[in-house]
Amino acid sequence: MTYRIKVINPNTALAMTESIGRCARAVASPGTVVTAVSPSMGPESIESHYDEALAVPGVLAEVAAGERDGVDGYVIACFGDPGLDAARELATGPVVGIAEAAMHAATLVGRSFSVVTTLSRTVGRAWELAHRYGFAAACRGVHACDIPVLDLEDPAARKTVTELCASAVERDGSDSVVLGCAGMASSCAEVSRETGVPVIDGVTAATKLVESLVSLGLRTSTRGEYAPPPPKRYSGLLGDFTH
Amino acid sequence: MTYRIKVINPNTALAMTESIGRCARAVASPGTVVTAVSPSMGPESIESHYDEALAVPGVLAEVAAGERDGVDGYVIACFGDPGLDAARELATGPVVGIAEAAMHAATLVGRSFSVVTTLSRTVGRAWELAHRYGFAAACRGVHACDIPVLDLEDPAARKTVTELCASAVERDGSDSVVLGCAGMASSCAEVSRETGVPVIDGVTAATKLVESLVSLGLRTSTRGEYAPPPPKRYSGLLGDFTH
Amino acid sequence: MTYRIKVINPNTALAMTESIGRCARAVASPGTVVTAVSPSMGPESIESHYDEALAVPGVLAEVAAGERDGVDGYVIACFGDPGLDAARELATGPVVGIAEAAMHAATLVGRSFSVVTTLSRTVGRAWELAHRYGFAAACRGVHACDIPVLDLEDPAARKTVTELCASAVERDGSDSVVLGCAGMASSCAEVSRETGVPVIDGVTAATKLVESLVSLGLRTSTRGEYAPPPPKRYSGLLGDFTH
Amino acid sequence: MTYRIKVINPNTALAMTESIGRCARAVASPGTVVTAVSPSMGPESIESHYDEALAVPGVLAEVAAGERDGVDGYVIACFGDPGLDAARELATGPVVGIAEAAMHAATLVGRSFSVVTTLSRTVGRAWELAHRYGFAAACRGVHACDIPVLDLEDPAARKTVTELCASAVERDGSDSVVLGCAGMASSCAEVSRETGVPVIDGVTAATKLVESLVSLGLRTSTRGEYAPPPPKRYSGLLGDFTH
Amino acid sequence: MTYRIKVINPNTALAMTESIGRCARAVASPGTVVTAVSPSMGPESIESHYDEALAVPGVLAEVAAGERDGVDGYVIACFGDPGLDAARELATGPVVGIAEAAMHAATLVGRSFSVVTTLSRTVGRAWELAHRYGFAAACRGVHACDIPVLDLEDPAARKTVTELCASAVERDGSDSVVLGCAGMASSCAEVSRETGVPVIDGVTAATKLVESLVSLGLRTSTRGEYAPPPPKRYSGLLGDFTH
Amino acid sequence: MTYRIKVINPNTALAMTESIGRCARAVASPGTVVTAVSPSMGPESIESHYDEALAVPGVLAEVAAGERDGVDGYVIACFGDPGLDAARELATGPVVGIAEAAMHAATLVGRSFSVVTTLSRTVGRAWELAHRYGFAAACRGVHACDIPVLDLEDPAARKTVTELCASAVERDGSDSVVLGCAGMASSCAEVSRETGVPVIDGVTAATKLVESLVSLGLRTSTRGEYAPPPPKRYSGLLGDFTH
Repeated sequence: MTYRIKVINPNTALAMTESIGRCARAVASPGTVVTAVSPSMGPESIESHYDEALAVPGVLAEVAAGERDGVDGYVIACFGDPGLDAARELATGPVVGIAEAAMHAATLVGRSFSVVTTLSRTVGRAWELAHRYGFAAACRGVHACDIPVLDLEDPAARKTVTELCASAVERDGSDSVVLGCAGMASSCAEVSRETGVPVIDGVTAATKLVESLVSLGLRTSTRGEYAPPPPKRYSGLLGDFTH
Repeated sequence: MTYRIKVINPNTALAMTESIGRCARAVASPGTVVTAVSPSMGPESIESHYDEALAVPGVLAEVAAGERDGVDGYVIACFGDPGLDAARELATGPVVGIAEAAMHAATLVGRSFSVVTTLSRTVGRAWELAHRYGFAAACRGVHACDIPVLDLEDPAARKTVTELCASAVERDGSDSVVLGCAGMASSCAEVSRETGVPVIDGVTAATKLVESLVSLGLRTSTRGEYAPPPPKRYSGLLGDFTH
Repeated sequence: MTYRIKVINPNTALAMTESIGRCARAVASPGTVVTAVSPSMGPESIESHYDEALAVPGVLAEVAAGERDGVDGYVIACFGDPGLDAARELATGPVVGIAEAAMHAATLVGRSFSVVTTLSRTVGRAWELAHRYGFAAACRGVHACDIPVLDLEDPAARKTVTELCASAVERDGSDSVVLGCAGMASSCAEVSRETGVPVIDGVTAATKLVESLVSLGLRTSTRGEYAPPPPKRYSGLLGDFTH
Repeated sequence: MTYRIKVINPNTALAMTESIGRCARAVASPGTVVTAVSPSMGPESIESHYDEALAVPGVLAEVAAGERDGVDGYVIACFGDPGLDAARELATGPVVGIAEAAMHAATLVGRSFSVVTTLSRTVGRAWELAHRYGFAAACRGVHACDIPVLDLEDPAARKTVTELCASAVERDGSDSVVLGCAGMASSCAEVSRETGVPVIDGVTAATKLVESLVSLGLRTSTRGEYAPPPPKRYSGLLGDFTH
Repeated sequence: MTYRIKVINPNTALAMTESIGRCARAVASPGTVVTAVSPSMGPESIESHYDEALAVPGVLAEVAAGERDGVDGYVIACFGDPGLDAARELATGPVVGIAEAAMHAATLVGRSFSVVTTLSRTVGRAWELAHRYGFAAACRGVHACDIPVLDLEDPAARKTVTELCASAVERDGSDSVVLGCAGMASSCAEVSRETGVPVIDGVTAATKLVESLVSLGLRTSTRGEYAPPPPKRYSGLLGDFTH
Repeated sequence: MTYRIKVINPNTALAMTESIGRCARAVASPGTVVTAVSPSMGPESIESHYDEALAVPGVLAEVAAGERDGVDGYVIACFGDPGLDAARELATGPVVGIAEAAMHAATLVGRSFSVVTTLSRTVGRAWELAHRYGFAAACRGVHACDIPVLDLEDPAARKTVTELCASAVERDGSDSVVLGCAGMASSCAEVSRETGVPVIDGVTAATKLVESLVSLGLRTSTRGEYAPPPPKRYSGLLGDFTH
């Protein structure tokens, strides 16, 4: 059986989308086809609530397109998990955010984790997600490296991130590290080698979780909150249209 | 001193915007100028996470416009408080959501409250906000009348809402009722008369809270999370532009 | 319309009562008449649970007197919010404590706050209130300057408080500072200037919240817990009497 | 070794004080001398926050007297645990409230408990104490029989309480019942027989806990919050005096 | 690449072990070899804390044997997740319990879930696990069918379970159902069809989660708590030996 | 009346059992007979989840033997409280763990406590128990001295423990110290003298709590979860038998 998983990078930085796609494909099962995309509209990186808010319509357009294409499940590949609830309303298959996936995986390999994120201003959102997903007690610290998203591939940046991961584990006394940005995905193995603890990247974790849910036949419940949205008129945003 | 408060109804139903504006103005201090607006884009009512997500860019455009016009503070007049975090990044003055305001007010006049909302599918969001704002223990129940937002002004609907408020208080043993939709604002006094408990409408509560914060000289902290968003390129959404 | 707000300083330090009154009046709306009083009995400052307990009967006598005078709402101007529940039973209008008010306001202008209080021994009570009001997650630290209440007006003390506010925000990574004593009210603007973050004084915040509740027509619920106390015989305390 | 335990009934109903004393003495160890007292001032029964507030000065005067008499430990025998924190500041030995004691004991003989209390208006306070002591998850329900404190000894009242205990356990699925008033102490064995579950009376539980702490040499910590209150001038209340 | 997953049924009912093995193999990826075993010692079914405690040594012996055999990951197939922490200390690969797995999966396909379990006496343990894993807020109810574990395959029992699942979802307003016993695994598809909501069986969910963790290269952290246990002398239990 | 309390040291280190017995007897009431035992099987010390799991069957065998001997109540004298739930199912009288007892006692003599434990790997379990018993907010820190259980009687070890207790109180700002191992019981008075705060040893605290419950006539509820375990066949472990 072949499963189709669509990995949506909510920003418009195509190099990052390609890197994300490579990471996801590296862990996918042989029968899984992974497509990685960026929306045609939205911010080039997501580093604020404002960026996140403007990224969401593009993410949802990609989910809507995926539904037309028969996609089996979706990954939202930004650590703020933007648009997750709305995407669950649109998609028939499961949708998993990378913060959500990484935190789930972390609690399966230890009692506690530290998050290493990009800018300090994103720390609040990371904690908010930890609370929402039930992992506030397991999350022992959220640490910012204060490197912008698009600079993370730089070798000096990778070194800084690795060092911060090591010091975060010490300071927090935690069992593992969660990488707080899709742009850190390609550093995962390296950081794990350096720190000696499990290091969890949400992109790969989410890919496996979506694959698992699909193969278990589990889809988002349509019993109430996540039923398809009621049809209505939307003005202006993408041209007037009726859903 | 004159304060300018902009009340943003995130949907595009202009009759509702006018009603919201009337409610806000009825409680504003003499020196306060209240403007009530709808975005030019977005859904005609908000009844899903999808609707909420598509409403947010319009809300933020209204905040951006408000900043150019010297607005002192903002109310987001939809019970899901859509775009609240992002609006706080854009605005120099305070921004308050109506769910937030109503829950704050309710906990000042009793130990507990019940929420009466529109469609069952919105119950999850109401609880999520109660958790976020710290009022999960004070919130004793969220009850849906299953009347669509745009039908709330109908007399039969008003009667249903009133009866649900009364039964919610009994079932939950709570001290007050929070009205879970801006479209219920005009029923507030009537429901209070019928039920004999404090009934809190978020539109009026938020208007007074914003006015209070402005007169106290309190603005959203720009120390970290809510500093102005870093400038960057946004594609497509509203035409390519740089913030 | 004219509103009458009574600000009760639960200690008997009249200079402090006057200062509190000045702060409250400075933010009150034109139509609001603010009276600031001290009870005729009780401790000269409140720095222990014992002090708080002995202050409460005087606070309640002032509320009872206010009811006879047609007062519209009350502020309890001590950061332990002494007697708040009992005062709500006696008063027909709203009653707000300054710790309560300051924490409510702080969560409207940021995700998190630090409290700066007087003696170390009051730290426990501040945390207890943060838990009670729902703000335990938002409160990131409570820091004592170890200056007695009646010495706070001293210039050296004001400097110490300002410095502690600045360091608390850094240590806690919080968005704002809550001043943990009515005796710090007059330093509010100065501390805000020095630290660059919102600094919230409970006296002014509570005055605006009471004013807001009154103008919204919201009174403490009398449905259960806060109904007028059942009449009975009280011995000794204030002479034998029947309520 | 002889221990002196003072059981303070915070109301002025002497018949109830005697009954409380009998219950306490029935469980005390041979070497323990139990004295049961009422303050000379305060309400004749405690059924509101107001009553509780006015009872506290009398409770504290009894603790102060106990200190002069060499008392080893104290029980505060009203289910609202009035004045507990302040009493801990005054006493050198341990002080335990009966709500506190009963909830502690209940969690040692089962995972969960139901509270049966007097008037509905006291339900909020019972929950507040459950939260404060850490037992909010263990407390599965607080149920009011709506019988005034001073009528509890009436046979019909005892029957009502017993039946409510039985139904509370069923409704809540809980392991035990906590009696929510010192006036129910003498019904404890009877209710236990009728319901077949452990029934915990706080008066006896607190007596044993205080005795245990005393024999363990454990006293309230004086490291910070519960150190003796700083000396100061108190006006009016009990005549002007300096502590 | 071939992965070896060992599914340990902690009781000694071999028919159940075979059924569990079939369920696990049905969802495993082509490259995964699933072995299902029962310990040679322990209770024939697990329906009390006592049963659970006596099952654990056998579970751990199976993990120890698995380590000698080069097993890549383990599933503990009893809804109490017995021995999970200890197994994590012994195993180099990941270990997942079926309650843990089911609750993780449930929160990925909805905001809330109901648990349907066997005997009423197991309800407390289910809630305890929900708290431990962070899902206490997502778990809206735990409902017992009061059918013993070994009778669950009976057609009448399956009907009772299905009906209870349907009523639990209604009563709790939850998005999905978690089956609270490995003995219900084979009913999963049927219950899902009947109730129209996602129904999660922990055996299959855990199999996919272990497979996912293994393919992600994630092993239990050995940084602290879950490092191999310090060697020492164990008497009697399994004959004297040194670990 | 004579009460028989059995103190079970879950490890097989007989010198430690004797020391534990001495501590328990030192605080027991004149009428209480304390027996201290070790199981005939299990680990010589408990320093991992694995050790704990293997200790439990021996603990339960001792409870079963105690039931035949007419024991009135039990203490489980290891800070992980191993087998507590299962022991409650077997025993007719109360069973208390020493972590449980120490945390209960600590919250009666202050608002907060620090735990000082042995190896770092046990920190997670201590926090888990604090959460389970309701004391997660009261527990301000768990600090490991990294001294193995069987080396704690060494004078240098005692000094290290004392110093860690002192620094833990400072770092955590807590009111008291809980000793996190039965092997520290004999140091209790000494540490208290050195640190000046209440120091709580669980062995003595549990002895008094069990004694108190017994004299109150309180036994573990048999209403649901803690009823005697259903009879069934157990294989292998202790020879085949039926409970």
